[in-house]
Amino acid sequence: MAAAAPPPPPTATAELNMNLPTTHPLFTRIRLATISDVPFIHKMIHQMAVFERLADQCSATEQSLTSTLFTKPPFESFTVFLIEVSPKPFTQFPNFPNSNFSPIYKTLTLDFPITDPESEKFKSVVEDGVTVAGFVLFFPNYSTFLAKPGFYIEDLFVRECYRRKGLGKMLLSAVAKQAVKMGYGRVEWVVLDWNLNAIKFYEEMGAIVMKEWRVCRLTGDALQVYDEMSGNNDVDLI
Amino acid sequence: MAAAAPPPPPTATAELNMNLPTTHPLFTRIRLATISDVPFIHKMIHQMAVFERLADQCSATEQSLTSTLFTKPPFESFTVFLIEVSPKPFTQFPNFPNSNFSPIYKTLTLDFPITDPESEKFKSVVEDGVTVAGFVLFFPNYSTFLAKPGFYIEDLFVRECYRRKGLGKMLLSAVAKQAVKMGYGRVEWVVLDWNLNAIKFYEEMGAIVMKEWRVCRLTGDALQVYDEMSGNNDVDLI
Repeated sequence: MAAAAPPPPPTATAELNMNLPTTHPLFTRIRLATISDVPFIHKMIHQMAVFERLADQCSATEQSLTSTLFTKPPFESFTVFLIEVSPKPFTQFPNFPNSNFSPIYKTLTLDFPITDPESEKFKSVVEDGVTVAGFVLFFPNYSTFLAKPGFYIEDLFVRECYRRKGLGKMLLSAVAKQAVKMGYGRVEWVVLDWNLNAIKFYEEMGAIVMKEWRVCRLTGDALQVYDEMSGNNDVDLI
Repeated sequence: MAAAAPPPPPTATAELNMNLPTTHPLFTRIRLATISDVPFIHKMIHQMAVFERLADQCSATEQSLTSTLFTKPPFESFTVFLIEVSPKPFTQFPNFPNSNFSPIYKTLTLDFPITDPESEKFKSVVEDGVTVAGFVLFFPNYSTFLAKPGFYIEDLFVRECYRRKGLGKMLLSAVAKQAVKMGYGRVEWVVLDWNLNAIKFYEEMGAIVMKEWRVCRLTGDALQVYDEMSGNNDVDLI
């Protein structure tokens, strides 16, 4: 049927126009978290633990996070980026003096508005309509072969109702950009081997999965036996 | 033959005494490395790369190590312990003020003396008879579930002629002890899945191998596309 006439082009009737989907802008911002964001970070860490079915292993409290995070300048130690969303443009533009980082803004266009059942828990106390949607926690690591620092991403989390919109990719990209800006050599993180969707996502972002490497962990009672006073190990003071 | 007389007990004859093996003490010390140790660290990093058949991936120079290591106080960032050996007791006792770490001394008893073909390259310039035998490079990491820092060991290396004497275990134990002393929650590192001897060694030290986790790495050109100026990724400034 190669010689048949092509179908007529679509005509823009009044009826078609009325059925065009309405678009919904979602304004997003990635910024450095501060100690005042600990309540949001704490809630998301626990949601992540529930999602990973590891809630019994999660003992983080607002107090323990407050005493261990944000004790050093951003990027020198444990660092958190938050991603926030708003149905209208942001009116405040937070900056960290001397942090070598400026917040990253991007507007998404959604076909449907997002209903956030937990918006009250995650709404900003300083900016009307702004809600925390996810976070990434990372810190410097070091490659002796490159003789360069890099970043290690400990956690990347997007709240459930904001998933599949590209927010995770934006957070990971923000860490990668910061690494490039600082002349760092690598960004690394771990993934569960059965999480094929995550592996595909990371490979599409340019990552290599190091198939032969296994993480070793010394923790809990097995670590505590290395108490200097216990004598339960081979290194004795003479 | 249960009712037979037991063999006579060994008698200490002059001949037996002459055949007793002579023992050789090896004095060891674990101390914090400083910037003046970079030439030793640089040589060992390259020996490690050759051992792992990854020499082509190792671009570290004395200069690049000098500019990236020892820029912050010990344990706050990238930290190196050296293990040194000496055929006679150490005469100097280096200490880092306020470092929360004192050198660890241990005397090994060997059946045979060690011949070190590279002793000239690795001998101390300040202490006669003292030779660098290995190192461990580590830095803080963070567990959100524990809300505690830990240590991540990037490299653990013992020079070939000093292997199988327990020096690697002593270095790893020293890091674990320091973690316990600082109230940290974990010590982690990676191992190649085919290196069954190493896995057995680590498990005997109390470590768990995290079988399901895989390391993801973004590096080289795949990282450089996240240059802020390139626009080759999804996060655009608006």
